[in-house]
Amino acid sequence: MTKFQTPRGTRDFLPETMIKRQKVLDTLRSIFEKWGFDPVETPAFEDWSLLAAKAGGGDAIRDEIYYFRDKSNRELGLRFDLTVPLARVVANNPNLPKPFKRYHIGRVWRYDRPGTGRYREFWQADVDIIGSAGHRADAEVLAIACDALEKLGLVDFRIRLSSRKLVESFLRNIGVKDISAVFRSIDKLEKIGENNVAKELKDKGLQQAKVEEILGFIKLKNVKDIEAAAKDREAVNEITDIVNILGEYGYSKYALIDMSLVRGLDYYTACVFEISCSGMSIGGGGRYDKLIELFGGKPTPAAGISFGVERVLEIMEAKKLLDEKKTVTKIFIACIGIDMKNAIDLARKLRKAGIECEFDIAGRNIRKQLDYVNAKGIPYVIFLGPKELEKKTIKLRNMKTGKEEEVNTKDADSLISSL
Amino acid sequence: MTKFQTPRGTRDFLPETMIKRQKVLDTLRSIFEKWGFDPVETPAFEDWSLLAAKAGGGDAIRDEIYYFRDKSNRELGLRFDLTVPLARVVANNPNLPKPFKRYHIGRVWRYDRPGTGRYREFWQADVDIIGSAGHRADAEVLAIACDALEKLGLVDFRIRLSSRKLVESFLRNIGVKDISAVFRSIDKLEKIGENNVAKELKDKGLQQAKVEEILGFIKLKNVKDIEAAAKDREAVNEITDIVNILGEYGYSKYALIDMSLVRGLDYYTACVFEISCSGMSIGGGGRYDKLIELFGGKPTPAAGISFGVERVLEIMEAKKLLDEKKTVTKIFIACIGIDMKNAIDLARKLRKAGIECEFDIAGRNIRKQLDYVNAKGIPYVIFLGPKELEKKTIKLRNMKTGKEEEVNTKDADSLISSL
Repeated sequence: MTKFQTPRGTRDFLPETMIKRQKVLDTLRSIFEKWGFDPVETPAFEDWSLLAAKAGGGDAIRDEIYYFRDKSNRELGLRFDLTVPLARVVANNPNLPKPFKRYHIGRVWRYDRPGTGRYREFWQADVDIIGSAGHRADAEVLAIACDALEKLGLVDFRIRLSSRKLVESFLRNIGVKDISAVFRSIDKLEKIGENNVAKELKDKGLQQAKVEEILGFIKLKNVKDIEAAAKDREAVNEITDIVNILGEYGYSKYALIDMSLVRGLDYYTACVFEISCSGMSIGGGGRYDKLIELFGGKPTPAAGISFGVERVLEIMEAKKLLDEKKTVTKIFIACIGIDMKNAIDLARKLRKAGIECEFDIAGRNIRKQLDYVNAKGIPYVIFLGPKELEKKTIKLRNMKTGKEEEVNTKDADSLISSL
Repeated sequence: MTKFQTPRGTRDFLPETMIKRQKVLDTLRSIFEKWGFDPVETPAFEDWSLLAAKAGGGDAIRDEIYYFRDKSNRELGLRFDLTVPLARVVANNPNLPKPFKRYHIGRVWRYDRPGTGRYREFWQADVDIIGSAGHRADAEVLAIACDALEKLGLVDFRIRLSSRKLVESFLRNIGVKDISAVFRSIDKLEKIGENNVAKELKDKGLQQAKVEEILGFIKLKNVKDIEAAAKDREAVNEITDIVNILGEYGYSKYALIDMSLVRGLDYYTACVFEISCSGMSIGGGGRYDKLIELFGGKPTPAAGISFGVERVLEIMEAKKLLDEKKTVTKIFIACIGIDMKNAIDLARKLRKAGIECEFDIAGRNIRKQLDYVNAKGIPYVIFLGPKELEKKTIKLRNMKTGKEEEVNTKDADSLISSL
């Protein structure tokens, strides 16, 4: 135990982990861009009043926000998601061409109890479509999620779809007054189980019969039954429409209508979704048509989806979908009794050919150099000694197979490009 | 003026800016990896006691650190650089193979007065070599900096090199007691000018004659003069050695010995350097051999360099080295009176071929679709209407030249790959 550790709930990422993370983040970024989404970045901290805005989600999450004051006594907080900052950006920049399609991969902070796959500092990868009220926008962000997960090799995921509007219509029909309070209890279903949700609802003043009705409704998966109970044709059409459009993309097989899903943050207004894989929630989102207005912007419809990067990584790790690599270095130039200028020149050549390489800068003997190569797991070594320089050859060893090849310097290019 | 702005000293990056930033960061990352440096990430915040450690740099920068307490009353602070977290990582992970060569591109925070090119939230791009005391390590990080700047198209930069050891030897020779205090005044030379530095030194109790000696010494550029004044052969050899090794890489033309450089942070122990371009400091670094030990690690030599990403971007912007692009999207599929499934299928094909593309998801007419294309500056449009579907053709328009090409669907691949 050394003097200083990372603060509780946060972690360092050493090369072995970072190489995997970057691989996943690069894939996500590439897919988001292929779909025509543009990058945006926002500050790590925002005005406290923005983050804590009641209908902005802040009410449900207020206790989890890292709060501080700067030296001018401004009240600030670390962002807890990437949606609230996006809504502010859109409110502040009313002339962005619409639909504004952006992605954002970045870290967020929540003062939550740390646990398996749960950290106080974690990364989200979001895509959102701003300024389009049509169901094609909801379907498009879901389709991107499907494309991304397939590209990452996660094909056994499930998207649960629900509609806050539908659940709300149903709750109104049966005479529930405080809809938000019931949403918040339903949202805990997976976490605390049906009995505890029932208990919470009763504690909130609902009669046993109503609690049973609610628990019955959220179990419905059949559209006809849902329509009969909610009596909201429009909201039913909305959700079936989204599933149908998802079918045009070839992704409806992943979708499942599930009324028990309402999502925790208060900014959602209509369709909501959650993606799970290997029994873990790895992302979610929905439509939030009031948030930009709430932050002083023009009324602007919006829908988006957010991946929990750590969760995705954890599942990919468990499924062994990620290469184990301790270093990006591909070739180590082992030097023995030669002018270092030769190593520098060869390294320049290799780098120009796109190859990650390094050589010894510590003046160590050949045994120590190879110890380093083995400790880091560098896959190839080029030996460069007086003999090779004289013969104008390059000797390459594959460190995994032990196989060695010696080629003329002028044939080195083709050998190297074959790696 | 809408309700919420970004906190003072911080900014949003909209796509137009982000695309440029990513281009620069991607280039830096690629070069760092080519040199065999591995990625590391650390938490945004650290224990306050780590950041504020006197000899760790915290003393000079303490007032600029964002300080806060979490809900368990832990004292924390946002990181002000990437070197202190790295030293902690190495102290905590004594078994990392050495030399440990890592890069880290990430944001840091300093509560500084905001100004041109100066923000409270900004990005650094660092490379460091841990565990190598030899001058090749200092030269290597400088060589990477040169390679990176050349690749970015910045060829008129200068590296000023100095040695804290040399300046210290000189100061001891003339009987100065509080070396750190003098360092701190010299560090302000560019900011406040020679007269004010002289005044500060006098205020610190130095006699006029000594102040003049100091101001004379820090103007020396000639190695012989420096050696005569500092009487420290070893430290002189150190710095000339580094310049010579840099020559092996072909980069000594950028280097200039300049004793007025001491750098502000107290963790530097030997050679220090600063890179400037277009009259602006864009990076700096040096050797910090005591920092890892200070944080509870084994005594471990270390040297590194740090780029100020905003500064680099600002200069590249001024030199018009960055493409103006409002979107990553390359092709917009304009749909007119057809089943959207056709657009979805074409988009899938284009994406598979590596092309960023999108289509209208809002059900707008063709004029509005083209307005969107123009507003975003999307370079190509494919028109997809009943006619094209019937003829099995694809009509592509170059939005810059207005030139149109119509090819058979089966020839679309070669047309597209030619873009």
